[in-house]
Amino acid sequence: MPIVTLSCRITFCASHRLHNDKLSEEENRRLFGKCNYVNGHGHNYVLYVVLKNELDSRSQMVMNTDEIEKITQEHVLNKIDHRYLNVDVPEFKNLIPTVENIVVVIWKWLKPVLGDKLYQLRLDETEYCSAIYEGN
Amino acid sequence: MPIVTLSCRITFCASHRLHNDKLSEEENRRLFGKCNYVNGHGHNYVLYVVLKNELDSRSQMVMNTDEIEKITQEHVLNKIDHRYLNVDVPEFKNLIPTVENIVVVIWKWLKPVLGDKLYQLRLDETEYCSAIYEGN
Amino acid sequence: MPIVTLSCRITFCASHRLHNDKLSEEENRRLFGKCNYVNGHGHNYVLYVVLKNELDSRSQMVMNTDEIEKITQEHVLNKIDHRYLNVDVPEFKNLIPTVENIVVVIWKWLKPVLGDKLYQLRLDETEYCSAIYEGN
Amino acid sequence: MPIVTLSCRITFCASHRLHNDKLSEEENRRLFGKCNYVNGHGHNYVLYVVLKNELDSRSQMVMNTDEIEKITQEHVLNKIDHRYLNVDVPEFKNLIPTVENIVVVIWKWLKPVLGDKLYQLRLDETEYCSAIYEGN
Amino acid sequence: MPIVTLSCRITFCASHRLHNDKLSEEENRRLFGKCNYVNGHGHNYVLYVVLKNELDSRSQMVMNTDEIEKITQEHVLNKIDHRYLNVDVPEFKNLIPTVENIVVVIWKWLKPVLGDKLYQLRLDETEYCSAIYEGN
Amino acid sequence: MPIVTLSCRITFCASHRLHNDKLSEEENRRLFGKCNYVNGHGHNYVLYVVLKNELDSRSQMVMNTDEIEKITQEHVLNKIDHRYLNVDVPEFKNLIPTVENIVVVIWKWLKPVLGDKLYQLRLDETEYCSAIYEGN
Repeated sequence: MPIVTLSCRITFCASHRLHNDKLSEEENRRLFGKCNYVNGHGHNYVLYVVLKNELDSRSQMVMNTDEIEKITQEHVLNKIDHRYLNVDVPEFKNLIPTVENIVVVIWKWLKPVLGDKLYQLRLDETEYCSAIYEGN
Repeated sequence: MPIVTLSCRITFCASHRLHNDKLSEEENRRLFGKCNYVNGHGHNYVLYVVLKNELDSRSQMVMNTDEIEKITQEHVLNKIDHRYLNVDVPEFKNLIPTVENIVVVIWKWLKPVLGDKLYQLRLDETEYCSAIYEGN
Repeated sequence: MPIVTLSCRITFCASHRLHNDKLSEEENRRLFGKCNYVNGHGHNYVLYVVLKNELDSRSQMVMNTDEIEKITQEHVLNKIDHRYLNVDVPEFKNLIPTVENIVVVIWKWLKPVLGDKLYQLRLDETEYCSAIYEGN
Repeated sequence: MPIVTLSCRITFCASHRLHNDKLSEEENRRLFGKCNYVNGHGHNYVLYVVLKNELDSRSQMVMNTDEIEKITQEHVLNKIDHRYLNVDVPEFKNLIPTVENIVVVIWKWLKPVLGDKLYQLRLDETEYCSAIYEGN
Repeated sequence: MPIVTLSCRITFCASHRLHNDKLSEEENRRLFGKCNYVNGHGHNYVLYVVLKNELDSRSQMVMNTDEIEKITQEHVLNKIDHRYLNVDVPEFKNLIPTVENIVVVIWKWLKPVLGDKLYQLRLDETEYCSAIYEGN
Repeated sequence: MPIVTLSCRITFCASHRLHNDKLSEEENRRLFGKCNYVNGHGHNYVLYVVLKNELDSRSQMVMNTDEIEKITQEHVLNKIDHRYLNVDVPEFKNLIPTVENIVVVIWKWLKPVLGDKLYQLRLDETEYCSAIYEGN
């Protein structure tokens, strides 16, 4: 069976604030600009869950997209959709919720479930900015 | 000179929480669902400022798009970009920041500056949902 | 309360064949081209349900988008999503499923439920072609 | 037969320079900014040809999109696609090729062919800026 | 000459049904859900033909995009555009037309023509789901 | 710290003409088609600056996107935005401004500034055509 890459696009909404507790207010404002405003702001995030595997012989798919969506709903969206990341999500209590860190955290949530099939995660924060993580 | 409609697309990010103080927690949750979560969430908003007017004879434009952007920066984005609407924006102290109310508030900010040229505002909250206001 | 227009974007997939039984095979091929191929073909349709109304005083929304989606799921998608329109949908037994006719049929399904709030339906068949219907 | 609006999306590429011969160099630079640079620049234009009419009884369409594309190819794209508007297109010898003027010129080209069916033209110059003309 | 990757975007429409003849009706419905409905459904497919090669010294291109489109028209679109894959395309008589299998079949059609220049094919079935194949 | 890829999307407008001085008019027209028209034409280019690096410990980012934009403004856009590439940009005096060559030239401008962090550049010339360069 051929080895194919399958990408599944899933959206969620969340708010966050970029702030490093170890730096002064002045340094935070210089480093993070408007993203440091005290009450946070938010985004429509677009997540691409990218799997790579030999096709399954029964379905002739990498994986059923309904199943990918169900797994992502349970292990990702239930934790961060419509949430204020800095306050509502324990992983970001001591981690700045930059788009880079969010995609790494999502990888940690999905990797135990999707295993070797999980090839790449891409997270678009705005139409101007995306982060990609492959587990390194 | 012909009468032409000109639409200018401008993006900003903000967070909000949908909550009606006059209703019970139970009613709020039923009415607003995930949008009622206590710490709010956010969106990448897309605003279309739509002007309609006879072309200006010097520029042969409805208005210079740089000027529209400058006006929108000063009168809209400086107030709501990267902000938590419920807390940071006085207009939403007693007004639920639904996409419908946000577009009406932006109209109130832009109308005195753009006058009769202002024809329509469209605000996309997500790729699934937009509100349009024409001043009625 | 202000009068606002709210647009909700909903996607579905379907297949169809353009063929007028009253015309010859030759005329059908000339009129509909590749859309007349005997076993049909399909599209990812994008439906915009556009409502216009005074804001509701409790929710300060035109209508909750979850409710619009639920109504559209029940009255539209359950009938045509993942279907072969010419065969599976009774309305198209004697009606050519052009994008124009599909949007009119969807209007007939939604109008009794959404009433005066329903302002416009837009249906994109491809990225090159859309039909809009306002009930006339 | 119902009255439906049909929108057809067509793309072309062109270059232009914004410059008003009756103004000084200084005034031109202030009015048009970077769009006044002496050798011009270009865009991927997106044109929406929007027709509104009772459905045709044979095809049950407003008009066949292949026919709309053929007409637009002949009467619009053959004149301006891959051209430098200020130099190659006679209509812009004495008319500044702003997006507003281009959409008005395209209207003049299409109106005699499409007649009363032609309802609206929309021309996107960039993802940030569009002009709409309805013949007034 | 530098080695550059060139991606060319081409669209087509088709219908298909996901069904494995070796499984029971019950198993098929569980495995493929709505995609198993008996009369099929369809999609607007978007194909990216991705070439990677040293630039040609005369054209300073990887390959002329008009030529890529012509080759794809002849070797791909003439076989599957506006077709019901399960019935009209011999390759899918004994192969389930999942997006993964379609992209592999297109690779088999294009590889003999494009040779070593062919680097990757990406096929979007909906805005939610894409498959990528690199010949492994 | 994890290694993450960060992609930043930046737009500019330019015009160009494809023409190889070493070939006859006849050969140029055959090779480049409409892109060879004598006065040129233009595009809305979309540039993706893609960085790959271990996250910075203070910002927990690959790089601040404001900084990427500032660098790209200074080293790329100031040279080619709103310009006629063949005439205004010295690099294209003896180099055909194909999308492949433009992306290679931009790499040469950005590489000395972004160093090892620069992983890939992608340049979309139209919605139908993109070039990717990784420095080889």
